[in-house]
Amino acid sequence: MSVLQQAADARIAAIDLASAIRSEKDAALLLMASRLVERADDIVTANAVDVENARTSGLSESMIDRLSLTTDRITAMADGLRQLAALPDPVGDVIRGSTLANGLELRQIRVPFGVVGIIYEGRPNVTADAAGICLKSGNAVLLRGSGSAMSSNAAIVSVLRKAVADAGLPADAIQLLDASSRDSVKELMRARGLVDVLIPRGGASLIRTVVEESTVPVIETGVGNCHVYVDEAADLEKALAVVLNSKTQRLSTCNTAETLLVNATLAETFLPLVVEELINAGVTIHGDPRVATLDGVVPATDEDWDKEYLSADIAVAVVDTLEDALDHIRRHGTGHTEAIVSENVTATRRFTAGVDAAAVMINASTRFTDGGEFGFGAEIGISTQKLHARGPMGLPELTSTKYVVTGNGHTR
Amino acid sequence: MSVLQQAADARIAAIDLASAIRSEKDAALLLMASRLVERADDIVTANAVDVENARTSGLSESMIDRLSLTTDRITAMADGLRQLAALPDPVGDVIRGSTLANGLELRQIRVPFGVVGIIYEGRPNVTADAAGICLKSGNAVLLRGSGSAMSSNAAIVSVLRKAVADAGLPADAIQLLDASSRDSVKELMRARGLVDVLIPRGGASLIRTVVEESTVPVIETGVGNCHVYVDEAADLEKALAVVLNSKTQRLSTCNTAETLLVNATLAETFLPLVVEELINAGVTIHGDPRVATLDGVVPATDEDWDKEYLSADIAVAVVDTLEDALDHIRRHGTGHTEAIVSENVTATRRFTAGVDAAAVMINASTRFTDGGEFGFGAEIGISTQKLHARGPMGLPELTSTKYVVTGNGHTR
Repeated sequence: MSVLQQAADARIAAIDLASAIRSEKDAALLLMASRLVERADDIVTANAVDVENARTSGLSESMIDRLSLTTDRITAMADGLRQLAALPDPVGDVIRGSTLANGLELRQIRVPFGVVGIIYEGRPNVTADAAGICLKSGNAVLLRGSGSAMSSNAAIVSVLRKAVADAGLPADAIQLLDASSRDSVKELMRARGLVDVLIPRGGASLIRTVVEESTVPVIETGVGNCHVYVDEAADLEKALAVVLNSKTQRLSTCNTAETLLVNATLAETFLPLVVEELINAGVTIHGDPRVATLDGVVPATDEDWDKEYLSADIAVAVVDTLEDALDHIRRHGTGHTEAIVSENVTATRRFTAGVDAAAVMINASTRFTDGGEFGFGAEIGISTQKLHARGPMGLPELTSTKYVVTGNGHTR
Repeated sequence: MSVLQQAADARIAAIDLASAIRSEKDAALLLMASRLVERADDIVTANAVDVENARTSGLSESMIDRLSLTTDRITAMADGLRQLAALPDPVGDVIRGSTLANGLELRQIRVPFGVVGIIYEGRPNVTADAAGICLKSGNAVLLRGSGSAMSSNAAIVSVLRKAVADAGLPADAIQLLDASSRDSVKELMRARGLVDVLIPRGGASLIRTVVEESTVPVIETGVGNCHVYVDEAADLEKALAVVLNSKTQRLSTCNTAETLLVNATLAETFLPLVVEELINAGVTIHGDPRVATLDGVVPATDEDWDKEYLSADIAVAVVDTLEDALDHIRRHGTGHTEAIVSENVTATRRFTAGVDAAAVMINASTRFTDGGEFGFGAEIGISTQKLHARGPMGLPELTSTKYVVTGNGHTR
């Protein structure tokens, strides 16, 4: 079936889904969860096909691990859906309301977008997550997963669609797009009018392509060249903890720190200490000339300051002032997360105002920029654009609004 | 100067402007207002050049009227700026805040977008309005007005920039782009990374071009094929008032009704009455077969249902049920404003849920979808898209958000 036909079917499903009340949607989510567990063996069998193909085509062991599904991982997917059922429904929330001078009653309420397209790479668990989040927020979803997970995704979506239908909601609210070629991505990007929002989740080149070519409105996610700035007035113990955690707690996430900026007043004290600790933690230091004098540091190239390493590497520079740190971040940051470690209120206030990013961390690890950590209960991605949503996106970020104005024959 | 250079200058200005506090911005707005009045003669002189050119090139008298500036109109522009100064500053508003289980303090605050591009047609008063709204919301603005208003816009922007600079804010926060060719529009649409948001205001073809070609995120404004549905349970007096007002109070606005849908139970009673009143008001009725039997009605073509007339024309159809009305609106509506006239709560509830539009009017004229009527005090346009802002956009809609997270050395 063509993407446009699938999108048209999704639009029809979205009309019903927009009127579905919370209890109906939650019942569907719980049925989706239990069916995933019941059908875990079938899903694992389907996954084995993908894993076999991945081995044949020589994918790395870490990629194969991300692709692999086990009963435990399927149980975790089901748990995610159950947690969604427990979250409040954003649809119908009154955001703003007033009675105007002429007696008109104004309410601004949350409504679903309609049809959401999600383009993602890698792990098949995203399939269940994204389907669940969209269903809970009243949106039909078109899922365009990775070609390497085709068989797994087909099995998961088949189970989910059946569950949705058995729960009395339209099965076409969840549809998988053909991942065997790039054509489906192209068609999805041109389905303006049928698809309301497109969310690309994946590498920088995927996101850039979608942003540049899509006529459907896009929410840009995820590229993070995050900085930690250690200020003159930093508590050095906190600074060490925050830097280490920001860089090493997990290497491959978008909220991992990629550059460390150290105030020049700390060049003789804190800098050698943090460099040593990072090296001990297995991190390669790419240092500017003032850092490269230290043992074991690799001199940084111009490119290092713009790199999202997603690996055990960090670029380190000495900056003379807080303003220099802000300048550096303005030139090289991607607007994701920027952290300052400082005990000085004037410094943290200036940093907060001067940094243009989705999240600013004060004496806290960059790794906290996350829907789960923020207490949202669910996350569809982290927006690095300024329009609509910025930072971790939970259920409310998957809605639009509608003004409802009630009068008594009012005219102008 | 190239658009990219102007955008780069705007970015630098935007950094300062983002940190400007309300009293600084309000002082600038008040100075902008008084300078416009002081320099009214110069602006009128500059406007005379545009009006002369418009006459030479044979523009219609109504277009020339829209283009013409008088001392009164310039005073009105100044008053608009003074009203902006009196409005609350959205920047810094805390939208969401909590302390997480681990003690991290989470705040989501409003911040300016940065650089906003506005592409508009026609009236030069939009120049001062847009500049004022962007300044108040902390955004630098790139104004790309109509070629026909080039001389007027240059005079207005020159006065405004001087006032902004004299008030101690960066003059480059307000810049006019070359309107002598379409190149500036093209460059603006490709200035991703320098321009944060693009707002096209004007005709359908301008908006379509921007939406399809821009890599800068766009807020789509304005095309309105608005419907009034008169339900079986309507109070006919209210229905008559709402229909007449929605169609005739002003013909050329996006919130003017273009199609009337009448429930079949009212085909013998209300329908002839409303048709007669509309004809008496000078409106041409384009009726479906059940309407076309009435005196003075022109048979509707297939195209009539999709037309945004912006003139003394209305398409009228009889529908058998509320669901048929919803179907009709789904096929032909543009998601702007849809109205129902009914005394029945179940009907208005169903209509409100079933209509996918920025605004739903219950027993009120479609003409109320307006920032001024909604009490926003200022309006940059009416968004008909679902991302970011939907409906009339005031100052808060010209902002993004930023999460500020404060810890005490917190790590994951």
